[in-house]
Formats: sequence, structure tokens, C-alpha cells
Amino acid sequence: MLEDVTIIGSGPAGHTAAIYLGRAERNPLMFEGFMAGGIAAGGQLTTTDTIENFPGFANGITGSELMEQMREQSLKNSVRIVTETVCSVDFSKRPFILTLESGETVETKSVIVATGATAKTLNILGSKEFWQKGISACAVCDGALPIFRNKTLAVIGGGDTAMGEAEHLAKFAKEVVIIHRRDKFRASQILQDRIKANPKIKVMWNSIPVELKGSKLLESAILQNTLTGENTELEISGLFYAIGHNPNTEFLDGQLQLDGQGFIVTQAGSTKTSIDGVFAAGDVQNPHHRQAVIAAGSGCLAALECEEFLIKN
Amino acid sequence: MLEDVTIIGSGPAGHTAAIYLGRAERNPLMFEGFMAGGIAAGGQLTTTDTIENFPGFANGITGSELMEQMREQSLKNSVRIVTETVCSVDFSKRPFILTLESGETVETKSVIVATGATAKTLNILGSKEFWQKGISACAVCDGALPIFRNKTLAVIGGGDTAMGEAEHLAKFAKEVVIIHRRDKFRASQILQDRIKANPKIKVMWNSIPVELKGSKLLESAILQNTLTGENTELEISGLFYAIGHNPNTEFLDGQLQLDGQGFIVTQAGSTKTSIDGVFAAGDVQNPHHRQAVIAAGSGCLAALECEEFLIKN
Repeated sequence: MLEDVTIIGSGPAGHTAAIYLGRAERNPLMFEGFMAGGIAAGGQLTTTDTIENFPGFANGITGSELMEQMREQSLKNSVRIVTETVCSVDFSKRPFILTLESGETVETKSVIVATGATAKTLNILGSKEFWQKGISACAVCDGALPIFRNKTLAVIGGGDTAMGEAEHLAKFAKEVVIIHRRDKFRASQILQDRIKANPKIKVMWNSIPVELKGSKLLESAILQNTLTGENTELEISGLFYAIGHNPNTEFLDGQLQLDGQGFIVTQAGSTKTSIDGVFAAGDVQNPHHRQAVIAAGSGCLAALECEEFLIKN
Repeated sequence: MLEDVTIIGSGPAGHTAAIYLGRAERNPLMFEGFMAGGIAAGGQLTTTDTIENFPGFANGITGSELMEQMREQSLKNSVRIVTETVCSVDFSKRPFILTLESGETVETKSVIVATGATAKTLNILGSKEFWQKGISACAVCDGALPIFRNKTLAVIGGGDTAMGEAEHLAKFAKEVVIIHRRDKFRASQILQDRIKANPKIKVMWNSIPVELKGSKLLESAILQNTLTGENTELEISGLFYAIGHNPNTEFLDGQLQLDGQGFIVTQAGSTKTSIDGVFAAGDVQNPHHRQAVIAAGSGCLAALECEEFLIKN
């Protein structure tokens, strides 16, 4: 059977695209993935607790609930959801061919890639245990939570994102400590200058966390000095990873134009990729913002642009 | 008092921007408008019934409920909401100055314009009575509703949007009649060709509706032939206006760059306008898509870009 459209991924971008294409009677097929990118179907939001900034939920909603709602909404709009991971694609001829981990193949006229990006974390003791119990990879999302207010917080990283997260957190925190493994930042100078000028932010150079400790919530980090090897303990109530994201684009094997970090390049203000009929939505094509509602908006746009493509072809 | 940021408008774009800026501790001020653009605070969505395509609400939600939720969410995030309409702006000096209908003025470092656009309708008998009871201005939003399935539907217009709406509706309808006041369309030729080739779509040239009739729901339209003046009655279950939208930008008095139809011009993939520190989000800067979730996504982006502007200045 030749599919009109296949959606790869099941976060807010994938489901919003699916809901719209279902309503446009395109009978869309979605591969929601089976622990694709190391994350359950539903994407990164399923690893978060309460989301307070997705518009429409005044009392907040948990990440799992929000994604369960979206999944149900897709099903109501006749989306066929398959819990398998697409492991390779062939965009060199039409129809496009997708190959699943099972070895099965699917022929499709168009594709929406919405496989997201995964925050890089450190594989150290306590990193999994205290995830979302003091550890986060998004200050904009979580910084305003009560558990972080007027507390000492740490940011791991040394790029623009780390500076931005530290500055954002400094609004709520008693103190923010940027922990950086080298003796200088790679962040732009203007951001570094602002960090230096902020009395609430200090920097620990040549340091890496080697263990995260606590009881129910995160309480401290053991830091190792990379020059001396010496360990110290820093009391913190929050630790924010800002060491980058890995876009889930390996399975594309270079068939779409990617940027230097592996994110899919789309035309500005559009979800069109380097191949006509292939669209990309959500974090997989947006290294900067990583917000659920932006991803959802781009999923809607992908659906509208895909529908336009299908009508023309 | 000098404001960090003032948000003009209270639809999904305005409230999403407000929620994010509230959480970033910018203490944002929102003018939600008092019947601005002829529409209640909350914007166009407040005039719709159930919304089935806003992601996260598997059972649908009414437009009023969704906007009530967003408003409450803004309030929870310390947004100061004022039910007044901004009637003029001065972007020629900093801080910017906004003037309200009451004559009061507000000084602000940055502005997010999210005043939306209003669908053009015809001021004829029954047009208000059957609004959302058979009459709509958005086929993508409403076309899949049960009341329109396998029925005869009318589209009013002659441009690209009218062709697109007719084609979309033809998927669900028994028949679609495009009613056009002239004897040719201004739509692009490729769209006209597809309309001609679609057996479910027919065209009534030189015709305008002069009255819409029904009991509880819309049942028919009285059409007047613009050449002969003769009236005929057409049985329809749905009527879709596709005669354009009016962006609510008059109060800007030309101080931001606008396109030919009066929509605010933003940089592609951004909410930045022709003036640094003034951002535009939602339908007021998007003549094409008009979907709540796209507007909400752009509101989030406006907040992030505005926050970046405020940090730098």
C-alpha cells in the first residue's frame, strides 16, 4: 500500500501534524518509535513532571498526560499509530521508502520528520535518580518551579546556552554556579561579560561533576577538579545541563541537508527540507528554542505544507 | 512607571507570550482590548464552538473555554491584564509610548503586537444568526465537523483561499458550490484548473448571497444574480467565507512595515518587526495559516526574542 504521508516521531510536533492530516482525510501513518533516541513514545515531554507553560492548561499538566491526550486526539482523527522505530530511509526515488527495525518497508509519497532532539546529560552516579527531582535540561521550562526558588543552582556548560540558562536562573535563585570543565568559556563575549557583571552568578573553572547526591530531591554535587583531581562537595538544589542536544537524525544517513550539529535545515519560516515532499517539524529542525508549543506550531505548519504538496502532486 | 514589556492583544499568541514573559519575571502588562476589532477579549477563538485540532485536548474544547484557561494561566504567572484597547502608538522614540482609548499613556521598553486579524464577512440577513451554526470562515478548522459531512456547502470568494477551501471541503461534502460575484476568478490558474477538474465542485458566477435562512442551523442562501438582479434559493448546510481577513493594524498608523494587505512584516522564522524591540505574533503577521496553535507557537517565540532583547538593552 502506498501511503500519502508518514510521520516519524510522536512528540508535540508529530502529533499536531498527525491530527491536522487526519482531519484533512489523508489517513496518516505514524511511527511513534519504540524507545527511539532512548526515549519512550511521546518524546522528551514524557520525561518531565508538570508543564506550566503549555497554553491552555491553567493548572498545569504532566508531560505524560499531555502526550497521552495528543495521542488519543490523533487516534480520534484516524491516525494509524505504529510502535516501531524507522531505522533508515531512501529519499533518492519516489515514492520514498522507509525501513523499520523489523526489516519491513513502507512506501510513502511524503514524510514528516519529527524525531526531536535529546538533551545531552552526563552518565554519572545520581544523574538518572534525580532527573526531574532537581536535575533538568531546560531552565526556561523549569527554572520558575518552587523547588528552585532562592536556592543555590548549578549550570553545567560553557557555551551561549549555559550563559543564558544561568542568567535566567539568577532571577529566581539565591546563587547560580556555572560548572565548566575548562578554564575558559566558548560563549560569545557579550554573554560572558554579562555573566561576570551579575553578582548572583559565580563560575567554577576546571570542574566536572562526578556524583549527584540527595535523599528525595537533589542536595549536592561532588565536583572533581580536572587539574588536581581533588573532589569537593557543593550543596545545590538544582542542576541544569546545558551541554547541548543531539538531534535524532542519524537514521537519515545524510539524505537531508543538516547543519553542523546534525539538525535538519529547513527554509526560514517553513518546514520544507532540502527534498521536496519531506518536511521537518519540532526540535529536530530547531536547535534554539526547544519549547513544546513552538514544536506543536511547527507540526501544524508541516501538515498544512504537506497537504499543499500532496494536492499539487 | 516604565514597563519592560507590554502585550497588545489577548488571543493564543498574546497569552502564550504573556505566560512565558510572566515566568521570566518580566511582570508583563497586557491590554486585552475592549471589543477591539469588534471581537471580545480572547480574540477570534471566542467566536467558535468546539475546537478539535488544538493539541492536548482529545475531547475538544470550546473556544471560550480555551481562552479562559489561557487567561487564567497568564494571571497565575503574574500578568497584569487590563481590559482596554490601545488606540495609538509612538514607536519613534524610546521608551515607546502607547495611548489607550481613555487617553492614558503607557511607557514601555518593548512591545508584542498580537492583535490578530478578523475574517471578512458579509453584512446580510442571517449572517450573524447562523455564525458557527453553518457559517464559518475556516474550512480547515470546521470542515470535518459532522454537520458538514455529505452535505451541499458553499464557499464565497474567488481567490486562492476560496479555491483551497473548496478543495478541502470537497473531501467531506456531497457537493461544493463556489459563489463568486464576478465572471472570473483572481485565483492562480493551477488552482482554478484543479477546481474545474474536481467533479464535486461547481461554480455560480456573477452571484452574491443576499440572505441566509434556516431554523436552528443554516439551511439555504438566497443568491442574487449581479447581472439580471434575479434571486434564486440554494439549499446549503454550510457557508464558508473566503473573502479575506482584516489584520488589526490600523492603530499602528504605519509605524511598522506592513504588507499590501496590512499584515505586519516580520523576518522569516522570527517575530522581529521593522523596529527593534517591537515584536509581532499570531495572525496579525501571518496572512496564510490562521491556526491557533501556530499563533501560540509564534507567541512563545516572541516572548523568547523579546526576553533576549530586554537582556541586551
